[in-house]
Amino acid sequence: MIKVAIVGGTGYTGVELLRLLVQHPQVELAVITSRGEAGRPVSDLFPSLSGRLDLAFREVDVRALATCDVVFFATPNGVAMQQVPTLLDAGARVIDLAADFRLRDPAVWERWYGMPHACPQFLEEAVYGLPELNRERIAGARLIANPGCYPTAVTLGLLPLLEAGLVDPGELVADCKSGVSGAGRHARADLSFCETNENFKAYGVFAHRHQPEIVQNLGTVTTGAALDLTFVPHLLPLNRGIHATLYARLHAGAATDLQALYESRYRDEPFVRVLSAGSHPQLSEVRAGNDCAIAVHVSGKRVVVLSVIDNLVKGAAGQAIQNMNLMFGLDETLGLRQPALAP
Amino acid sequence: MIKVAIVGGTGYTGVELLRLLVQHPQVELAVITSRGEAGRPVSDLFPSLSGRLDLAFREVDVRALATCDVVFFATPNGVAMQQVPTLLDAGARVIDLAADFRLRDPAVWERWYGMPHACPQFLEEAVYGLPELNRERIAGARLIANPGCYPTAVTLGLLPLLEAGLVDPGELVADCKSGVSGAGRHARADLSFCETNENFKAYGVFAHRHQPEIVQNLGTVTTGAALDLTFVPHLLPLNRGIHATLYARLHAGAATDLQALYESRYRDEPFVRVLSAGSHPQLSEVRAGNDCAIAVHVSGKRVVVLSVIDNLVKGAAGQAIQNMNLMFGLDETLGLRQPALAP
Amino acid sequence: MIKVAIVGGTGYTGVELLRLLVQHPQVELAVITSRGEAGRPVSDLFPSLSGRLDLAFREVDVRALATCDVVFFATPNGVAMQQVPTLLDAGARVIDLAADFRLRDPAVWERWYGMPHACPQFLEEAVYGLPELNRERIAGARLIANPGCYPTAVTLGLLPLLEAGLVDPGELVADCKSGVSGAGRHARADLSFCETNENFKAYGVFAHRHQPEIVQNLGTVTTGAALDLTFVPHLLPLNRGIHATLYARLHAGAATDLQALYESRYRDEPFVRVLSAGSHPQLSEVRAGNDCAIAVHVSGKRVVVLSVIDNLVKGAAGQAIQNMNLMFGLDETLGLRQPALAP
Amino acid sequence: MIKVAIVGGTGYTGVELLRLLVQHPQVELAVITSRGEAGRPVSDLFPSLSGRLDLAFREVDVRALATCDVVFFATPNGVAMQQVPTLLDAGARVIDLAADFRLRDPAVWERWYGMPHACPQFLEEAVYGLPELNRERIAGARLIANPGCYPTAVTLGLLPLLEAGLVDPGELVADCKSGVSGAGRHARADLSFCETNENFKAYGVFAHRHQPEIVQNLGTVTTGAALDLTFVPHLLPLNRGIHATLYARLHAGAATDLQALYESRYRDEPFVRVLSAGSHPQLSEVRAGNDCAIAVHVSGKRVVVLSVIDNLVKGAAGQAIQNMNLMFGLDETLGLRQPALAP
Repeated sequence: MIKVAIVGGTGYTGVELLRLLVQHPQVELAVITSRGEAGRPVSDLFPSLSGRLDLAFREVDVRALATCDVVFFATPNGVAMQQVPTLLDAGARVIDLAADFRLRDPAVWERWYGMPHACPQFLEEAVYGLPELNRERIAGARLIANPGCYPTAVTLGLLPLLEAGLVDPGELVADCKSGVSGAGRHARADLSFCETNENFKAYGVFAHRHQPEIVQNLGTVTTGAALDLTFVPHLLPLNRGIHATLYARLHAGAATDLQALYESRYRDEPFVRVLSAGSHPQLSEVRAGNDCAIAVHVSGKRVVVLSVIDNLVKGAAGQAIQNMNLMFGLDETLGLRQPALAP
Repeated sequence: MIKVAIVGGTGYTGVELLRLLVQHPQVELAVITSRGEAGRPVSDLFPSLSGRLDLAFREVDVRALATCDVVFFATPNGVAMQQVPTLLDAGARVIDLAADFRLRDPAVWERWYGMPHACPQFLEEAVYGLPELNRERIAGARLIANPGCYPTAVTLGLLPLLEAGLVDPGELVADCKSGVSGAGRHARADLSFCETNENFKAYGVFAHRHQPEIVQNLGTVTTGAALDLTFVPHLLPLNRGIHATLYARLHAGAATDLQALYESRYRDEPFVRVLSAGSHPQLSEVRAGNDCAIAVHVSGKRVVVLSVIDNLVKGAAGQAIQNMNLMFGLDETLGLRQPALAP
Repeated sequence: MIKVAIVGGTGYTGVELLRLLVQHPQVELAVITSRGEAGRPVSDLFPSLSGRLDLAFREVDVRALATCDVVFFATPNGVAMQQVPTLLDAGARVIDLAADFRLRDPAVWERWYGMPHACPQFLEEAVYGLPELNRERIAGARLIANPGCYPTAVTLGLLPLLEAGLVDPGELVADCKSGVSGAGRHARADLSFCETNENFKAYGVFAHRHQPEIVQNLGTVTTGAALDLTFVPHLLPLNRGIHATLYARLHAGAATDLQALYESRYRDEPFVRVLSAGSHPQLSEVRAGNDCAIAVHVSGKRVVVLSVIDNLVKGAAGQAIQNMNLMFGLDETLGLRQPALAP
Repeated sequence: MIKVAIVGGTGYTGVELLRLLVQHPQVELAVITSRGEAGRPVSDLFPSLSGRLDLAFREVDVRALATCDVVFFATPNGVAMQQVPTLLDAGARVIDLAADFRLRDPAVWERWYGMPHACPQFLEEAVYGLPELNRERIAGARLIANPGCYPTAVTLGLLPLLEAGLVDPGELVADCKSGVSGAGRHARADLSFCETNENFKAYGVFAHRHQPEIVQNLGTVTTGAALDLTFVPHLLPLNRGIHATLYARLHAGAATDLQALYESRYRDEPFVRVLSAGSHPQLSEVRAGNDCAIAVHVSGKRVVVLSVIDNLVKGAAGQAIQNMNLMFGLDETLGLRQPALAP
């Protein structure tokens, strides 16, 4: 059994980790911390876990964390980096679901996240936890930077095109739509029901922190011209799900059997599903599951790729567990085979 | 033209008053106050009013208010009662959309609202602004207690039965469901989208402040046994609307042509619509309109009445304007004839 | 392994059975039938099952069904009763998720369902599959009438009160609200998104077929006065969940520690959770799970019980699997321990 | 008073026309036709109009229509073109809310709409009813092709850029999201509540009929390189609204004070609102109103324009009435000044 701790278990990412980990056959949930809720039974805050989990939130205690095999950080940005050096020293492995270790360049990180990085020396060691890109390195890692939700959907959607060098990397558009849980569990007027329901809007045009993360991911497989990706996120009036609509231009003379390319690229991936030609994936087919469903459309030089995930599963907690499985030599799909919930 | 002030225009009741008043042909909107937003253009906070209203929020200034013909209070409970004496003295009329003047007995008011009443001497003078019950008194009033949203739907639904003395007043049930706007415009975690969407729950069982208001309303027309009404409110995952499902028992031997009774009772009411026998009114047929739609069902001794309103219109701002029309001798329906919005 | 067939797998109850059964460790899904979709891969109709289930729909073939250990009917009313005699003869067990075997009196059944019953001789043998009421008989049954969704929520909510003889059985009200999936998977204008979203209404007042089923259930534990229950269902704008708000009157002199009564009654029930006093259960705490969460409120002689389930799980497919577990001597909770999905 | 007929008044466009026309001070609603609902009171089908409109649906009778000043067609594609010649001959004017007269080239029309055109000789005369583009021609027109909902939002969003020749017309992307009412009022399984709610998907990639309409609109103001616009529509889980996210590339050396450009272009437009720099328009600020709200964002060579409308108002019925006002010499805003509905 893998002894697991979760730091910061009171947000949506935290409760989703709990939902999935209580179903995982090789996990023993040992510690769940929360500064604000210490002492309170977890199922009191999250009645959805009643009868399924008999633990209470605790104060953060690094010694207790250090006795665990793996520590998940489901905290705001800037928390994990304070504790990672100590935990790694003590022999624990760390999976950070926030952004502290996602960008390799400390200067870029500090510019986008607006604070100094507490342990830039670990940015090099940290492995970006997208199994479809870094499976082998994940298996040997002590420290995982779990990908952002938008970057997961966008990277998986564009990866085959850029790896194959088929499209102009200077002309990419990622129009992304996220359910409200992606904004976290907060008391914010602009996230209140009446402001969000029956409503839709873009936000953070040219200013969202997932932009450099996507560019970094795609940059690792891009050759030739510089990457230029326009990324616009939007807020969908629903709880869960990300839909990325991706636009690219084929190079002159590029072969266009993109359907075969995608099917081949993802043939052995347990959680990426390439739909048949002409399909339109929908959020409901990945809701509460760890799948990414992708469809690719071509017309002349124009390519449109549609990529959907559940932001809390493949976009956060599920992918974190997939990474844990790889790190501990387990079947990558363990605890993650539940079908999507429809309707 | 009626010169109008609104105190506390930043909540959902406030913006709904504005939406309706800018369409009212006899109203001049003179003053809108907000402590927190003073100086800010109203259409900046409420872009739905852009191009339709060129006013900015102001600090509360009783002298400015006193120059208006009528002052609407769209404030939390306990605010209007601080200013009513001064305003009435100055010759303004007041319509309070909060609860300060809804209960006639100061002791009952203080028990339910948990504070001393600032001007109990006005509770007697204040007229409860349900035109279907108090039309004539409203026309002569200086001070209107605009009804609560639940009490409006429940009172209109049960009134004919109790006036006619047909049902046992000791066995009433009001199972009510409200859209989220009824809870106001707040940054509250429990009203955030993800907590409310795809969700439904009761709240405040046996403890909601609209209970004594309903009992007071129905008590004015009840004879015989004491009123005993069980009231349970619930939170619906939608923006607007109240649906009251009302249960009563016919007295032994009571005549049962309730359809005719309801049609006759409301024949001349411009905003109460009795549906044909066997109907089920739905929220969409009153959304954004000032109507109350009612259907009555009977089986043996059991009566079920279904009553729906838009909580922000007939349950708040629309009814307040209906009261204003009556107070100023205008056609009662002026500015309130817009059809409901469907879909 | 239990060899399982599902007849009529194309509705929401069907896909929910599939979602749960593919996660059940003792089940082999052998046959799924559909007249309209025969030959089509199940995951083509239900992409939420892609990669989780590799079966195609087949024509109904009683011989193939008869080779299975248990046949679930997720069909419209009137289908199971055509095939039950043959299947039982062949040694298969049957769980009917429709209403064919729910009412014991054939005359009552025929009046409410508007057709002759094809095998009334089995109504006596059929066991009503509410484990909290009939656990032992279910374990020995060949034929299970799986309860309706409303009757499950209402019966579990009122059972302790009536068993203990504390309330007047002639004064019961069940005000129930259901998500839209309860109406099935259909192309109906009145169930289209724009007609249902941002809307709410009652339907079938005094005319819903779950009324006699509830009365039959409660009648088995009621003594003294005749049962008189007013049942009003409503349609909620959400996918899953039933909320029952139940009203009763305590007998004069009845003890009122109802909290202790409920806790004691359901202490050993794996899927019924009695919330602490003063609580309000919400749909999100049972979404996609097999739990029923109940809270009881008392004020004077008035009792309000709040009872919530997921209509597709405890109200249909989950309860059917719970019954299967009992019939085959398995741990009753096998395959049904997933936590609820929140948000 | 303008005597108005509506052909095909039973869809969402029809009821929206009715909602707005009953509030129009210069309109007399004379005839509403429906083959399927002839004889039925309009308010029976649309209870939202109860008490506001006392008309019944009639069979289509061209002679009755011909006595009206203007006939609105709120019919499926292919209906208006059957009757337009007769009506124009009789002296009536026609506003077609379907697509029969939107494309000038009959061959293009027939390819996209899959049927022969019944009166191609009128395609030349028909005026495309986008007042911001064709105000003067609309004023003199007998026959208006009322724009599609997506083309309205996209054209208004891109018009200033293309008129000014600032962007590469060969690199345009229009990622559009529409509420469900845009799909019409139908009994379709894929538009049922449970299939649409909590869901989101693209549809009709490279195959939507609004693509050639947008290209035709923009083509009239484009010089230089050929237009190449990738258009992807998506289905939002809400009733009303279109959000267009538009992507373009500035020409090398193009001036970039796009904010000033947009403000100048739309300064005198009563229904186009250019938001301040950095804004993100949301659907709720145009819900039920006739406004288009636009924001423009620039970063380097990349431009993102956000454009929102209510698909049933500015995208259909409201714009049709705006056209009617222009055709009859009225104030263009008459009957269309209601603020948006929020929340």
